[in-house]
Amino acid sequence: MLVRKIGEFGLINRIKKLIRTGPSVIVGLGDDCAVLKYNKYNYQLLTCDMLVEGVDFTRKDKPFLVGRKALAVSISDIASCGGLPRYALVSLGIPKSRSVDLVDKLYGGMISLAKSYKINIVGGDISSAQSLTINVSLLGEVEKKNLLLRSRALPGDFIFVTGELGGSISGKHLKFTPRLKEARFLVKNFKINSMIDVSDGLAQDLSHILEESNVGAFIYEKLLPLSNQACDLADALYTGEDFELLFTMPRKEAGKLMRMKKRINCRLIGEIVDRKEGLRLVDKKGSIKLLKLRGFRHF
Amino acid sequence: MLVRKIGEFGLINRIKKLIRTGPSVIVGLGDDCAVLKYNKYNYQLLTCDMLVEGVDFTRKDKPFLVGRKALAVSISDIASCGGLPRYALVSLGIPKSRSVDLVDKLYGGMISLAKSYKINIVGGDISSAQSLTINVSLLGEVEKKNLLLRSRALPGDFIFVTGELGGSISGKHLKFTPRLKEARFLVKNFKINSMIDVSDGLAQDLSHILEESNVGAFIYEKLLPLSNQACDLADALYTGEDFELLFTMPRKEAGKLMRMKKRINCRLIGEIVDRKEGLRLVDKKGSIKLLKLRGFRHF
Repeated sequence: MLVRKIGEFGLINRIKKLIRTGPSVIVGLGDDCAVLKYNKYNYQLLTCDMLVEGVDFTRKDKPFLVGRKALAVSISDIASCGGLPRYALVSLGIPKSRSVDLVDKLYGGMISLAKSYKINIVGGDISSAQSLTINVSLLGEVEKKNLLLRSRALPGDFIFVTGELGGSISGKHLKFTPRLKEARFLVKNFKINSMIDVSDGLAQDLSHILEESNVGAFIYEKLLPLSNQACDLADALYTGEDFELLFTMPRKEAGKLMRMKKRINCRLIGEIVDRKEGLRLVDKKGSIKLLKLRGFRHF
Repeated sequence: MLVRKIGEFGLINRIKKLIRTGPSVIVGLGDDCAVLKYNKYNYQLLTCDMLVEGVDFTRKDKPFLVGRKALAVSISDIASCGGLPRYALVSLGIPKSRSVDLVDKLYGGMISLAKSYKINIVGGDISSAQSLTINVSLLGEVEKKNLLLRSRALPGDFIFVTGELGGSISGKHLKFTPRLKEARFLVKNFKINSMIDVSDGLAQDLSHILEESNVGAFIYEKLLPLSNQACDLADALYTGEDFELLFTMPRKEAGKLMRMKKRINCRLIGEIVDRKEGLRLVDKKGSIKLLKLRGFRHF
């Protein structure tokens, strides 16, 4: 069977079944980060992302922004677990015929973002390759009480999303601000039940929360914050690369969040319900539709 | 300027100059692993390696062995710092047209090696790519007193290497045993001054020790342990991918090591001298030659 046929998530599920981990691993494959035992008060978080030219960026994109994005996507993963990024490793696969200036600019973008998020770039690897390939691994930490996962949403939770959705491909995907400040504000001030970052589209990433938490959800078209760049509803639901935070919290906490809305740009978009409902969209006319669970997939 | 022209080490030195790290980073870019503050007795070690089809392995190589190698090279880095590997992240870039069976076998090789070295595979990323690309990041730890670096060799040290050198390309590079047991035996029983793994050829990797420690070295052709697969001396000095340990220790300790030789397969090959000597080879006739510092380079 071809990789193309089984698909990205089929492949991940297959790999998950092959792997066993020991007791020092709190969460292994399948969340935004791995969660590891660390000390009395904290866990360590570990995540990686591979960006490939022609898939995650094009040759026309500015190398500074490409380097920036390579680190930003991993910061977004650490943020969505409620933690703080600390140390980065960078592996670079680069064709011999590319310029040193390209490397300078890629690193320039990474270093500038690393500075503003107080991340140390501590090592890496360089290899010749056919296509420009950047892999960033990020080590971070999170207070045990602040750890957020995809798997703890509860029926009755309200669902929120930061910022706006859709149209990211027109430019935001290269310039987005990882929502670390927002995530830390949330974990410090509220009881959040689950969180994920919207990398593959709202529908797909919300469905990860639903699957892992064994629940369903209603979302309301009227409440979805479409960006000015979003062409239509489908764009906001399915295209991905928004890198906003999607999170769920008990209703009581939601009231408190509403009263502090000046402090964080986020919107209520729906609620968690029983799993048998699946994922449903209430459209502008009030009709209820079952949502297709598609979104960006590598294969 | 092209990447091809500045070369691998020119590129690394350029990147090093761009990067500053904070006080929690004991060693950043430039050794086999990054060394990070951890707790009272231990440091954390962090390393990564990117393997690309057509560079580090061919399409004809068995995927099980390719997966195994992808993890083994990073274990070798942790070993050469004196530490123990703990957690691995795996990023896989794979063309859509390749088979799921290939992925199973790649992971099969990694999982089998991970088991024997008690490493947890805790996460990863999958992306479509033009060439099969595997990046492994490995997090480990080392007792502070056992940390080994490239930078602490001293004039008068004897130089040792484990196993045999040369001809690795005929097969060993895909099947080598990372010298973790040997490295742990050494750090627990001896005062070792410096260590590195031989990945790019003895001459080049020894020159890293010399540069970082600001010393020179004499090595003796008669003492070099050539493997049966090595074609000639140049093969042992320059081809690389041996993944043996190269280390230096005070003469006194060397005597102790010689007496325990049954416990570890290693040979004395030379001595550390003043830096003004550079790297010299004493050939079988007793003539002294300055060694060229070439070896495997990506560009």
